[in-house]
Amino acid sequence: MGNNGAGVAEQKAQRVYSALDGFRIELPSWGFANTGTRFGKFLQGGAATTIEEKFSDAAQVNALTGASPTVALHVLWDLPNGTADVPAIQTLEKKYGMKAGSINPNLFQSAEYKYGSIANPSAEIRGMALKHLLESVAIGRELGSKDVSLWIADGSNYPGTQSIRKRIGWMEEVLGATHAALGDGQRMLVEYKPFEPAFYHTDIADWGMALELVRRCGPKAKVLVDTGHHAQATNIEQIVTWLLHVKELGGFHFNDRKYADDDLTLGSIDPYQVFRIFHEILSAEEKDRTDIAFMIDQSHNLKGKVEAMVQTVATAQELYAKAALIDQVKLAEMQQECRLVEAEECFRDSFWQDVRPIVREWRTARGLPAEPLKALAESGYVEKITRERESKNARSVSTYA
Amino acid sequence: MGNNGAGVAEQKAQRVYSALDGFRIELPSWGFANTGTRFGKFLQGGAATTIEEKFSDAAQVNALTGASPTVALHVLWDLPNGTADVPAIQTLEKKYGMKAGSINPNLFQSAEYKYGSIANPSAEIRGMALKHLLESVAIGRELGSKDVSLWIADGSNYPGTQSIRKRIGWMEEVLGATHAALGDGQRMLVEYKPFEPAFYHTDIADWGMALELVRRCGPKAKVLVDTGHHAQATNIEQIVTWLLHVKELGGFHFNDRKYADDDLTLGSIDPYQVFRIFHEILSAEEKDRTDIAFMIDQSHNLKGKVEAMVQTVATAQELYAKAALIDQVKLAEMQQECRLVEAEECFRDSFWQDVRPIVREWRTARGLPAEPLKALAESGYVEKITRERESKNARSVSTYA
Amino acid sequence: MGNNGAGVAEQKAQRVYSALDGFRIELPSWGFANTGTRFGKFLQGGAATTIEEKFSDAAQVNALTGASPTVALHVLWDLPNGTADVPAIQTLEKKYGMKAGSINPNLFQSAEYKYGSIANPSAEIRGMALKHLLESVAIGRELGSKDVSLWIADGSNYPGTQSIRKRIGWMEEVLGATHAALGDGQRMLVEYKPFEPAFYHTDIADWGMALELVRRCGPKAKVLVDTGHHAQATNIEQIVTWLLHVKELGGFHFNDRKYADDDLTLGSIDPYQVFRIFHEILSAEEKDRTDIAFMIDQSHNLKGKVEAMVQTVATAQELYAKAALIDQVKLAEMQQECRLVEAEECFRDSFWQDVRPIVREWRTARGLPAEPLKALAESGYVEKITRERESKNARSVSTYA
Amino acid sequence: MGNNGAGVAEQKAQRVYSALDGFRIELPSWGFANTGTRFGKFLQGGAATTIEEKFSDAAQVNALTGASPTVALHVLWDLPNGTADVPAIQTLEKKYGMKAGSINPNLFQSAEYKYGSIANPSAEIRGMALKHLLESVAIGRELGSKDVSLWIADGSNYPGTQSIRKRIGWMEEVLGATHAALGDGQRMLVEYKPFEPAFYHTDIADWGMALELVRRCGPKAKVLVDTGHHAQATNIEQIVTWLLHVKELGGFHFNDRKYADDDLTLGSIDPYQVFRIFHEILSAEEKDRTDIAFMIDQSHNLKGKVEAMVQTVATAQELYAKAALIDQVKLAEMQQECRLVEAEECFRDSFWQDVRPIVREWRTARGLPAEPLKALAESGYVEKITRERESKNARSVSTYA
Repeated sequence: MGNNGAGVAEQKAQRVYSALDGFRIELPSWGFANTGTRFGKFLQGGAATTIEEKFSDAAQVNALTGASPTVALHVLWDLPNGTADVPAIQTLEKKYGMKAGSINPNLFQSAEYKYGSIANPSAEIRGMALKHLLESVAIGRELGSKDVSLWIADGSNYPGTQSIRKRIGWMEEVLGATHAALGDGQRMLVEYKPFEPAFYHTDIADWGMALELVRRCGPKAKVLVDTGHHAQATNIEQIVTWLLHVKELGGFHFNDRKYADDDLTLGSIDPYQVFRIFHEILSAEEKDRTDIAFMIDQSHNLKGKVEAMVQTVATAQELYAKAALIDQVKLAEMQQECRLVEAEECFRDSFWQDVRPIVREWRTARGLPAEPLKALAESGYVEKITRERESKNARSVSTYA
Repeated sequence: MGNNGAGVAEQKAQRVYSALDGFRIELPSWGFANTGTRFGKFLQGGAATTIEEKFSDAAQVNALTGASPTVALHVLWDLPNGTADVPAIQTLEKKYGMKAGSINPNLFQSAEYKYGSIANPSAEIRGMALKHLLESVAIGRELGSKDVSLWIADGSNYPGTQSIRKRIGWMEEVLGATHAALGDGQRMLVEYKPFEPAFYHTDIADWGMALELVRRCGPKAKVLVDTGHHAQATNIEQIVTWLLHVKELGGFHFNDRKYADDDLTLGSIDPYQVFRIFHEILSAEEKDRTDIAFMIDQSHNLKGKVEAMVQTVATAQELYAKAALIDQVKLAEMQQECRLVEAEECFRDSFWQDVRPIVREWRTARGLPAEPLKALAESGYVEKITRERESKNARSVSTYA
Repeated sequence: MGNNGAGVAEQKAQRVYSALDGFRIELPSWGFANTGTRFGKFLQGGAATTIEEKFSDAAQVNALTGASPTVALHVLWDLPNGTADVPAIQTLEKKYGMKAGSINPNLFQSAEYKYGSIANPSAEIRGMALKHLLESVAIGRELGSKDVSLWIADGSNYPGTQSIRKRIGWMEEVLGATHAALGDGQRMLVEYKPFEPAFYHTDIADWGMALELVRRCGPKAKVLVDTGHHAQATNIEQIVTWLLHVKELGGFHFNDRKYADDDLTLGSIDPYQVFRIFHEILSAEEKDRTDIAFMIDQSHNLKGKVEAMVQTVATAQELYAKAALIDQVKLAEMQQECRLVEAEECFRDSFWQDVRPIVREWRTARGLPAEPLKALAESGYVEKITRERESKNARSVSTYA
Repeated sequence: MGNNGAGVAEQKAQRVYSALDGFRIELPSWGFANTGTRFGKFLQGGAATTIEEKFSDAAQVNALTGASPTVALHVLWDLPNGTADVPAIQTLEKKYGMKAGSINPNLFQSAEYKYGSIANPSAEIRGMALKHLLESVAIGRELGSKDVSLWIADGSNYPGTQSIRKRIGWMEEVLGATHAALGDGQRMLVEYKPFEPAFYHTDIADWGMALELVRRCGPKAKVLVDTGHHAQATNIEQIVTWLLHVKELGGFHFNDRKYADDDLTLGSIDPYQVFRIFHEILSAEEKDRTDIAFMIDQSHNLKGKVEAMVQTVATAQELYAKAALIDQVKLAEMQQECRLVEAEECFRDSFWQDVRPIVREWRTARGLPAEPLKALAESGYVEKITRERESKNARSVSTYA
């Protein structure tokens, strides 16, 4: 288990450097805004409420971590006027040195979507949803953004109240039409989720359903895995492996959870699971994994927004570095020979290693602060934005009454 | 399985009549108001936004079902001025022929409670929480309401961020002081919940913790079981049985769920479970079950508010009637002799029986409409309140941005 | 909700008669044998230990219910000599008036399968597994049995000990070769299961994985849904709907559970769920559902074997009859108009109806005993077989020491 | 986060040394024997089948790890003649330099216990169970063993088949009588488990029920936490904290799981959870934790028995050492001030540290091999016992047919 000798240390460092140089993880614009639970949200003085504030915060995270040069945009909240807002986004891209990342349509907020959007029994409402999807595709094309990320919140709350079967057909139509509008270099990513906000059936509830739909749409559609969107005890890394195997893995929404879709910071509850997911990706052939979009999708209800995001990216880098240390050749040999305990020890030896010193070295070598959270604290950035934004932000809001 | 002969039919009817005559289930004032998920709420034109509207709706439900003469009140939303609002409530009680039911403090909405209320590390905030609890006790006393219902939303979102142990001690202090203030005939009910809004640890997470706390408080504290507040697969009826056995069962918040705390209408997902819970209560000695408060706690995000409430009470009555039909003597004999299949068939014979005809007869005999949902539709009540309340209610609100 | 008038009653009876006339559910030979948990089994005096005893018991169940003319066979336990045992089975078919049903290979019991069968890293052991599968196909062909039912228990117990990815490829090879051997009129059904006996990853863990594999194999491969093989809270009826939609649903293994794969009798824990599954099937077009094999797969550890099986078939008939009563036209209309409460009430009105009187009538009309469990008790069958088999069966066996 | 300077390193080493010097974890005799699932067991050539072989294997584990000088004994399997076997055990204690640890009665294997042991409706069978418990107490007294460990497998498989309520009373009687027989210095530990082998209700299903029973029994009864015996997502460290708070925590059965009660090796699925449990214990006052029995309860179906046990003890030591590194003073301060991200980083800094080098040093300083698994491999012990025991052990056994 020991890794002694300059040669080994050198080799380890190279693997970590190479892994981190290639590691990018996208920041969600909404991760800097106020969020909460159905019981209310505790507003933060420093929360971003404008798209410019979100770009500013994201740029700060990227400056500290070097891994997050893109910002996922939410159409309804960040481009309420659709493509007409594209120039404003482009101005912000230049001003903050950040690029627009994935485009996220919103098909869950309008009153019309009470009974569904693309799976709504009403053809008129499905048409409205399609229009929003096409606008999102247009935004992506104009911004030169690769991915349109679809989370379809549709479903029903009670047995017997909707035809699960007919709704499949309706979704196929709208998603097919969306796919047809994608330009060269554009993709659509289809997310799945077992429940919430729908509480009896969710129209795209698991990876199998998402896979059927993307297959039906065509080659530019891929599956998006949100790590928090699985039934308890699901083996997520196995799903990742299957999606790699069938070449339909489009990307990830990373977050962690203990119970439901808790949207906690990555690796905060089960870091070993993240390590295993990264291993499945890093042990795939390179061509199979170049097109996987890593994205963060978290809800920082209590933690400071920017602080939580820096912590998340740093943790992701460290867990990715651990996975990069696995001796794939040796592991494969032990697996082939069913030497179980030895294979397991070989595998988790990399998890047990403290990679933080090497990652700090890499950061310094790349002109980044060695300890991003400490650097954030010393920068005074959070205090500054809190002062600037506080007056408009500070109060609590119940979502219940 | 067959129940032939006039004698048997007569006996069955008597059991159902007697059960339904004694069955009361409390309506939550907030069940008539707009609710939603963290992703937004779809506002209903007919939703109640004032306490008078809530009394009006509750009175309508009671008029149709005959089983719900009390309304649970939420202090923050229904009596924002505390005891000063008591006279207004009393006026409504008279006007609508309804009584104030349990008093529900709110310790989760104010910004101060971000890190907890009665378990907050800050003594000052715990003091603020205690003050609100004492105000709630005073309200209950002045209204002649028996129960103060405590749902403590406290907890933490990440391992290591709070001392679980110290927080137990803090809760004990505040709850003890609350108990000391209870008047004669007053009780405090302590609810438990595994998660949400806290996502790593919830300070009162299960019935064992609630039981420890009520024991510590004293004889006027009892445990409140919310049927939606359990880990998947938990045997809830067994918990009910234990609480009956140790004489610490104070009451229920009824609702149903498939996934987390979905707050769906009672019996909508697993009606057999409700039947089993009712059986444990009905098979207990009478003295052990006279003091159990049955209450509804649901969130009607999509269903019509009043409609959902009428449906809920009617379903509760029907499932209660089914449980009342169980032949306890015969069942006990088969259980004692471990005649498994026979005991099971005896038990669920009552579940399979269609009690709706008898329940309809009982309703008619008691001067109630035979079919409450149909009567509601014919009454035009929902149309009327929708017209009256619509202008102020109709829009959708996101809780995310 | 009431169904008054002779016309309605007549119509209802017709629907139930038609449904029950077409309802067949297969009995598992192993359901009559001794079973247990890893902690031991409590042997039953009347348990079947020979294939003839299993045929005898199955024939008895079919005589009482009229719905179960076929017996699923387990190759290793019922045809230990492979095709050489086919003539003996054919003799029993004639003697007991029962037909051989699905053929079930066993790829989990031999010591060689410790690290997997068709997904084992060893090519030699995969070859051994394939040989057994081909033998099973041959048995099916010679017996004129339609389905070969594959439950692949393969998986691993610890992260890192096996290559999940490579094992997919190995499975594809062996299953493809098995498919190639299927004769005209033969099918292979591929079952999925999230865990047990493998405790970290199971190679075919969910319906998505099973679907990928059957697609890869070819048109004679279909997915088999075991109702007990899902993570907690999974919406099983939705999976059924998707499999119907993509025309890959081959059949069911019915049983019930509260926790894991408990193999309890059908409908004993959540009867409403079975009703919902039957509804999805009955609301599909007829051509989509003619080829669905209904099979029982239960483990009667405590209940009497034959008694439990009769109870199961009778319960299945009753729940199927309830689902057949749903007014599909009216329901579809309400669903289309999103009249939620009305749709739900329409849907579960059929669940609440006591169909036992109609089912009894149907039984009598078909020359069957009106109450199968009662008829079993009166027949003295269980006492007879217990006397005959007791001496060899009566002791308890631990599987742990 | 950095640990610079000789002083800090020295301090860290001291904390680890002190923690490991005080860390003991008991080995289960049955962990060296063949085990499996209900689908069969894969017998291992080197598995222990006699009590002497179990002592020999346990002594080997202790020689390599220095942390496991006691062996838990299973009455039925290790002392089939009850107290008459005590002298034989004492001979083995001397021969192998190991002490008898906890005494484990068996109330689940005999055919009489089909419907329960201490909760069986039959007074005669409850009497038989009590007799076995008293024999177990006598064995413990004669062997000078502190704990009698009770796992009560009682329960029922189907709703309605047993009276949950009456069974509570029966358990209270038998457990009370057992408690009365305990000698000075003896304790009884009561374990809880949500399901398996019972599949509808288990009489002692959670920590709340166990706590009620031990309170009723008296001061020598304590609760035993088996880490694998909880519903999915349960916060186990919180339960540990509560049991510490009420001074009723008797000990642990350690193992890990992903799904149900999988009995995998400690920390193999979720090592961060074990770290959190150890933290709750190490942050309690010393007097509260001196009497906590740490025990292993695992089922090594595939891994080599002795190899898995050495791996387990070494992993437990490493995770315990990590927890010992937490800076309790600093953490408490951050928790008090609700500096969430800082507190979390302070907490998991100890988890991220690679303690293996320090633990190796400690081992060497204590005269133990630096790498126990490597030392085991080099010792040839497994090969030796395999040769010696192989002939009688090598075959596979199905528990199903």
